[in-house]
Amino acid sequence: MTAALSRLPGLGPRSARRAVLWLIKRRETALVQLLDALGAVQGALVECEVCGNIDTHDPCAICADPRRDMRALCVVEEVADLWALDRARLFTGKYHVLGGRLSALDGVRPEDLAIDRLLARVEQGGVDEVVLAMNATLEGQTTAHYLAERLEAFPVRITQLAHGLPVGGELDYLDEGTLAQAIRARRPVA
Amino acid sequence: MTAALSRLPGLGPRSARRAVLWLIKRRETALVQLLDALGAVQGALVECEVCGNIDTHDPCAICADPRRDMRALCVVEEVADLWALDRARLFTGKYHVLGGRLSALDGVRPEDLAIDRLLARVEQGGVDEVVLAMNATLEGQTTAHYLAERLEAFPVRITQLAHGLPVGGELDYLDEGTLAQAIRARRPVA
Ligand SMILES: [Zn+2]
Ligand SMILES: [Zn+2]
Repeated sequence: MTAALSRLPGLGPRSARRAVLWLIKRRETALVQLLDALGAVQGALVECEVCGNIDTHDPCAICADPRRDMRALCVVEEVADLWALDRARLFTGKYHVLGGRLSALDGVRPEDLAIDRLLARVEQGGVDEVVLAMNATLEGQTTAHYLAERLEAFPVRITQLAHGLPVGGELDYLDEGTLAQAIRARRPVA
Repeated sequence: MTAALSRLPGLGPRSARRAVLWLIKRRETALVQLLDALGAVQGALVECEVCGNIDTHDPCAICADPRRDMRALCVVEEVADLWALDRARLFTGKYHVLGGRLSALDGVRPEDLAIDRLLARVEQGGVDEVVLAMNATLEGQTTAHYLAERLEAFPVRITQLAHGLPVGGELDYLDEGTLAQAIRARRPVA
């Protein structure tokens, strides 16, 4: 259950353990209420057929929002990533959830992900930019590379999230890979 | 002593605590030897008058190395940052150590840092690019801003380290500030 809870956006493994302990201590009241609430929500939740987001409506609130920019499409691995990015409130376009990342180890191939659906959305037109927002892991970057190649055929700008120092990052605490990337991708001071 | 050790490049607070325990257990042998070695090194160490690096020679090995690119100058807060960046082995230019960062809280003003010496090095000519490699903290970024303004008077390119996802960074574990920066600074897939 800790593992399950720690997948909730905003809950790291440590907060998840604290939450589990809190729930166990109050299992007669809080746990029953939570289970009820989760059951109710579970029944109401659907996967958006357009983007793969999880919401109470299909299409989801983001896909249905006319104020969001249809010309920018941000591709993420999981729904949790979509929620994390949307909390940062900087991206005003639409999303596309792949449902995972390519992995030789776990036997995840392109046909196991929502890639055809992504290409169909781009082919349909109206998209100017596809932002590849994969995790900065080996498998995430392999997936981004693969998608970039598949998207080359379309007249869209393909971008990726910036890699470098995280907010609060102190140089002598960061790993050499991150420092190397931060130097390689250094940019003019605005 | 844990605090002192944790300032060593590559030693976080936890590794430092382990190292201290290890030393205390072997205080008759290892601790005495370490103190001897540190004393010997201490006597041999000098601050490089050019860049502020700590080495057994002045000018330091980096300043004295003719294979390093004199046209690129990387400005860091502390010597530990210089060592961290140099371990990443991607930057082939020279360095300049400020000896701290501007801080209203700690009362650190421009004249407390090696800023005049930096401007003198740039004014001397031969430098094409100044890389501001401050920590991604509020004070680090304030310092970078201040330096960028002071350097505007010179015909040099002013760049800064890339900010964004650290290596291995998974979107739903990263803070919103880092995600916002990663989106804002997104770049074309090469
Ligand atoms: Zn949707
Ligand atoms: Zn030097």
